[in-house]
Amino acid sequence: MPTARELGLMPPGAITGPQITGPQNDICDVPGLHVGHCTIRRGDLATGVTAILPHSEDLFRLKPRAGVEVINGFGKSAGLMQVAELGTLETPILLTNTFGIAACSEALIRRAIAANPEIGRATSTVNPVVMECNDGAISDIQALAVTTADAMTAIANATGDPVQQGAVGAGTGMTAFGFKAGIGSASRRMSIGDTEFTLGALVLANFGARGDLILPDGRRPDPRGPALPERGSVIVILATDLPLDARQLQRVARRAGAGLARLGAFWGHGSGDIALCLTTADPLEHAPIQAISTQRRLSDDLIDLPFRAAAETTQEAVLNALCMAPATDGRRVEGRPRRHFPALADWLAANPSQKG
Amino acid sequence: MPTARELGLMPPGAITGPQITGPQNDICDVPGLHVGHCTIRRGDLATGVTAILPHSEDLFRLKPRAGVEVINGFGKSAGLMQVAELGTLETPILLTNTFGIAACSEALIRRAIAANPEIGRATSTVNPVVMECNDGAISDIQALAVTTADAMTAIANATGDPVQQGAVGAGTGMTAFGFKAGIGSASRRMSIGDTEFTLGALVLANFGARGDLILPDGRRPDPRGPALPERGSVIVILATDLPLDARQLQRVARRAGAGLARLGAFWGHGSGDIALCLTTADPLEHAPIQAISTQRRLSDDLIDLPFRAAAETTQEAVLNALCMAPATDGRRVEGRPRRHFPALADWLAANPSQKG
Amino acid sequence: MPTARELGLMPPGAITGPQITGPQNDICDVPGLHVGHCTIRRGDLATGVTAILPHSEDLFRLKPRAGVEVINGFGKSAGLMQVAELGTLETPILLTNTFGIAACSEALIRRAIAANPEIGRATSTVNPVVMECNDGAISDIQALAVTTADAMTAIANATGDPVQQGAVGAGTGMTAFGFKAGIGSASRRMSIGDTEFTLGALVLANFGARGDLILPDGRRPDPRGPALPERGSVIVILATDLPLDARQLQRVARRAGAGLARLGAFWGHGSGDIALCLTTADPLEHAPIQAISTQRRLSDDLIDLPFRAAAETTQEAVLNALCMAPATDGRRVEGRPRRHFPALADWLAANPSQKG
Amino acid sequence: MPTARELGLMPPGAITGPQITGPQNDICDVPGLHVGHCTIRRGDLATGVTAILPHSEDLFRLKPRAGVEVINGFGKSAGLMQVAELGTLETPILLTNTFGIAACSEALIRRAIAANPEIGRATSTVNPVVMECNDGAISDIQALAVTTADAMTAIANATGDPVQQGAVGAGTGMTAFGFKAGIGSASRRMSIGDTEFTLGALVLANFGARGDLILPDGRRPDPRGPALPERGSVIVILATDLPLDARQLQRVARRAGAGLARLGAFWGHGSGDIALCLTTADPLEHAPIQAISTQRRLSDDLIDLPFRAAAETTQEAVLNALCMAPATDGRRVEGRPRRHFPALADWLAANPSQKG
Repeated sequence: MPTARELGLMPPGAITGPQITGPQNDICDVPGLHVGHCTIRRGDLATGVTAILPHSEDLFRLKPRAGVEVINGFGKSAGLMQVAELGTLETPILLTNTFGIAACSEALIRRAIAANPEIGRATSTVNPVVMECNDGAISDIQALAVTTADAMTAIANATGDPVQQGAVGAGTGMTAFGFKAGIGSASRRMSIGDTEFTLGALVLANFGARGDLILPDGRRPDPRGPALPERGSVIVILATDLPLDARQLQRVARRAGAGLARLGAFWGHGSGDIALCLTTADPLEHAPIQAISTQRRLSDDLIDLPFRAAAETTQEAVLNALCMAPATDGRRVEGRPRRHFPALADWLAANPSQKG
Repeated sequence: MPTARELGLMPPGAITGPQITGPQNDICDVPGLHVGHCTIRRGDLATGVTAILPHSEDLFRLKPRAGVEVINGFGKSAGLMQVAELGTLETPILLTNTFGIAACSEALIRRAIAANPEIGRATSTVNPVVMECNDGAISDIQALAVTTADAMTAIANATGDPVQQGAVGAGTGMTAFGFKAGIGSASRRMSIGDTEFTLGALVLANFGARGDLILPDGRRPDPRGPALPERGSVIVILATDLPLDARQLQRVARRAGAGLARLGAFWGHGSGDIALCLTTADPLEHAPIQAISTQRRLSDDLIDLPFRAAAETTQEAVLNALCMAPATDGRRVEGRPRRHFPALADWLAANPSQKG
Repeated sequence: MPTARELGLMPPGAITGPQITGPQNDICDVPGLHVGHCTIRRGDLATGVTAILPHSEDLFRLKPRAGVEVINGFGKSAGLMQVAELGTLETPILLTNTFGIAACSEALIRRAIAANPEIGRATSTVNPVVMECNDGAISDIQALAVTTADAMTAIANATGDPVQQGAVGAGTGMTAFGFKAGIGSASRRMSIGDTEFTLGALVLANFGARGDLILPDGRRPDPRGPALPERGSVIVILATDLPLDARQLQRVARRAGAGLARLGAFWGHGSGDIALCLTTADPLEHAPIQAISTQRRLSDDLIDLPFRAAAETTQEAVLNALCMAPATDGRRVEGRPRRHFPALADWLAANPSQKG
Repeated sequence: MPTARELGLMPPGAITGPQITGPQNDICDVPGLHVGHCTIRRGDLATGVTAILPHSEDLFRLKPRAGVEVINGFGKSAGLMQVAELGTLETPILLTNTFGIAACSEALIRRAIAANPEIGRATSTVNPVVMECNDGAISDIQALAVTTADAMTAIANATGDPVQQGAVGAGTGMTAFGFKAGIGSASRRMSIGDTEFTLGALVLANFGARGDLILPDGRRPDPRGPALPERGSVIVILATDLPLDARQLQRVARRAGAGLARLGAFWGHGSGDIALCLTTADPLEHAPIQAISTQRRLSDDLIDLPFRAAAETTQEAVLNALCMAPATDGRRVEGRPRRHFPALADWLAANPSQKG
């Protein structure tokens, strides 16, 4: 499936201004960050797990700094309270469906203990971070189908290769604005002095009522089908190699909400809209030898660079999730016609821009 | 000056969906709410005060419920901490320039004491709510020109007539996205059962870097002039007669940020972006006779109605602030060419939409 | 084991002022509220689950209002983000050990689906609320021993009878201030007009470094044993039948922190100190028929009553957890002498008050 | 007047554990920090201003890092929203009475402009930080007596000498727990490796209902007089030379609430209880030359040291405010007997400890 840029939704310069995308235009442009999927398709199931690994070393021993923004808290994600308090991650981030939180959490705990047998014994416990959307429109969420093995598969699949997007991993059964959606990603590069930095977004897009989507050119694609109350959600993972402290990371995470709003979202009541921003710069040791360490920190005078990039990559990542997911039928429900979720790419082909 | 709708920026139905505007399409469509301005123009001064009075009775004795959202806290507004804790207002809301906070606060305190001599003696003190933007690009903010008398004038001028918009009151010296801006307003009506309710927005728009503005049709108006770092702010006052509790009001206030983002804002570092939402329904008595009262409360199942209206009216109010403010020259600065802030209406006349 | 009052730690009037305890002096004095335990003791395991059911009807269909205060967020509790956003509960509250969160969450999901087959299909999903402390000093937490069956047992055991306290249910393996601790509870009654209301606390006490405990008479019991870094936590569940809105409930929850501080706690870095306050008054329907409902609300002028009761019952509940737990040996660790956690009751017997 | 230690309220070791006080046992033990008072006593006035200057250089150009905790937000303090967002101070901190906020804010603005004429012109505006309690029980708060000149006098008086405590500066007219109170201070030293660090507290104590005070030995001093609703407040300024980031500073500020609770406070509804923690370490330049700077940061593994010190110094500073303030009569109110606020020192003399 084509990207939003390939479909003409993101004319160069029109949205990005002086900023440019990274080589892959996805979150894996952040050096060292890996993404992996486990896709589950069988019977009534279309679900899965997506893993984000900030770096390749042990995350419990070398904790990336992170901040969280709860844009709308109608959601069941795990581990965010501790990230907010401490400003650090200590496991991979897993994305999955709402009822997959427990299995994914258990997988992260068992994996951390296997690598660090002192957890819960000679040292503290571990805080699994798992985030979710409800894919019940397409998949049978009551099956509680995701297993700890699925979570481990997603982690094992993680690489720095171009991120698979659309109906894959945790995005397999997700929909947005009445269209099929799923996983999307995008990135921006920023020059600060002589150094290039990157900020990338990966979204699990499952939000927005039919008819609310706004394209960058102002058009409002409205797929066929009944108006349904929004019960979706969207998870935005932002990652960067800029040296940002926990307070700055929380502020960057907040700007994901601006990217969602530009797409027409108003962060609906029933939508769990959560953003997390991590940096790979200057992670914190689990048991530091030194009482006082030094950490690099971007001047707030320049923080509009990652703010802008966070809004833009979130917007583009959602558009990619929409553009790269093929049309799909909804879950079979006895006594009701099966719902259809068209592809945005098909809508765009049938509705060419008047500007072109 | 024309409104955004008169300039074709808000095609009926394209943005509003099933919702429609109130008869004035401004915040005074909320029954009982009054707005007044005091405009200061002399010498190097172009500043003022705008007053919002939720109802016409004594606000200290009958406190409207309210919620606050600090979208980006680079600002000096007064009184918000107590609104966040208690969920109530007890004075009019005044808008002014950054260094006018002290004079406006003093005016609200003196006015409350005059009407309630027991304040600070037989009962608690009073919490003045004053919000601000920095109009230093046009006006001499160092003059600390706003007086308590100016604040009282704005309050005395308050009526339920159509809100004067553009370069008036606190908006006299404000700019946004490189254009002249100021005060803007808009409203939406909502039917719930047999009853009509209204939500209105009034903005003090002074935010957004040159070139960042996005019109509803996707165009990005870029006025002439140098790129300057954003040091602006925006204040969004939302008002409704829907019965909402303090938690719901804070959630509605948060959606103002979505309206700003649709205009291209990413809530820049240097911008004090603050939203306050009040309801005129079921105000709280200062000294209630009954220990337990009953209050009406909208079901959360319907809260997407005011959420959507908050985002839309914020967006339209800012567009009105831009459309209804005439071009203005900036403050005289020795040794520098005087800056010019064009009118968006002029840009629109010179750049007719390709769609029309 | 005796209560704190029976041991003379809470002289009548000295702490409670005009307030008095409920008939059981525990959280089940709140009409309709039930508590149940599942205690797990075998081999290296001393852990369990404690269930709090605010009322006896289906909690998904009739949601109690609630507020949350994260006193220190070094914890892994589930479901709190949504409680903070929506101000409601929709499952029983389960308490367990840190690594029992996943199993307890799954149990609550399966139980809710069994009673409401439309969950995740015709209606939204469900938000399990599970809170935890780390009992690794006594129990083998790496065993991930708690099962969904254990969670269901705790729920099935729930009654309104006097709450079993000390080393029982989730409290089986918990310690505090170097002493054995666990579950504790207390309550206060409040007269408002002609009506009696109750506020009760139930704590899972597992916090506080050796030597930091302060008794109400100022004494500081210091058990034998090595000084260890605090890696504990404390969960405080407050419940009342006072009609309080979500904002008020959050404010009451915050006062649990005052009760902890009076015991000598300073909410240590490694301690997950979380309070949740629910009211059984005026619960919200899952699918309300009416768009606008009326709800009773206590005047803020009287909210110091539940504030004071929250601080006092939290303090007394922790003292009860300490007084009612017998001395216990810690988990067997190869190559290290086994740690001993004495009973506070034994210390009090050996150190009679000079005042008596 | 004697300190709390001189009156035997703080037996060495009983409260401080391994930590010890600084040489002055006040906030000026933090190197470079200065405190000054302006006391106003005439006619019905007993009020004033207290200034805290974190360092002696221009605070606008070299901004100390800071964090804020709103323990209970029934208050009118200025400037806290921006401190929370940016994590920095850029003016001295002024303490005064509730209706002195406007004059003190204006003084800080004028002072900053005088030293930095580019404020509001070539650079951003300035954020005055002023915090307050209501001294209306003793002083005529309706007089709005505090002037900009008084604020400047407090700043001009600032030195690093031992802090004047009791009924002085902003504390002149304050009361707590039915006793006369005012300004109090205390400090703790902490060894980290080979380096000594200090954390100090300065409180403006004006909180607590008659009969609620708890002394460290468990006694509850109850002065004569009628029970009145609490309408007080307490401001806690914590300062340290430990290198802490903004998130850590906010967490330390939160622990002031534990110190208040140990004194019997439950952070009453009508009390504006606010804590601010600043560090003199590694301040941020207003216009940094380098895009990326390095900053020192204490390991979270050691943050219990300042947590504990924050709770202890807050508690001791309040006791000092109580012990060092002489008995005073309340404001003359026609038709009512004049209220009397006894000294805690007198109560202690009349009620010798049974333990001694």
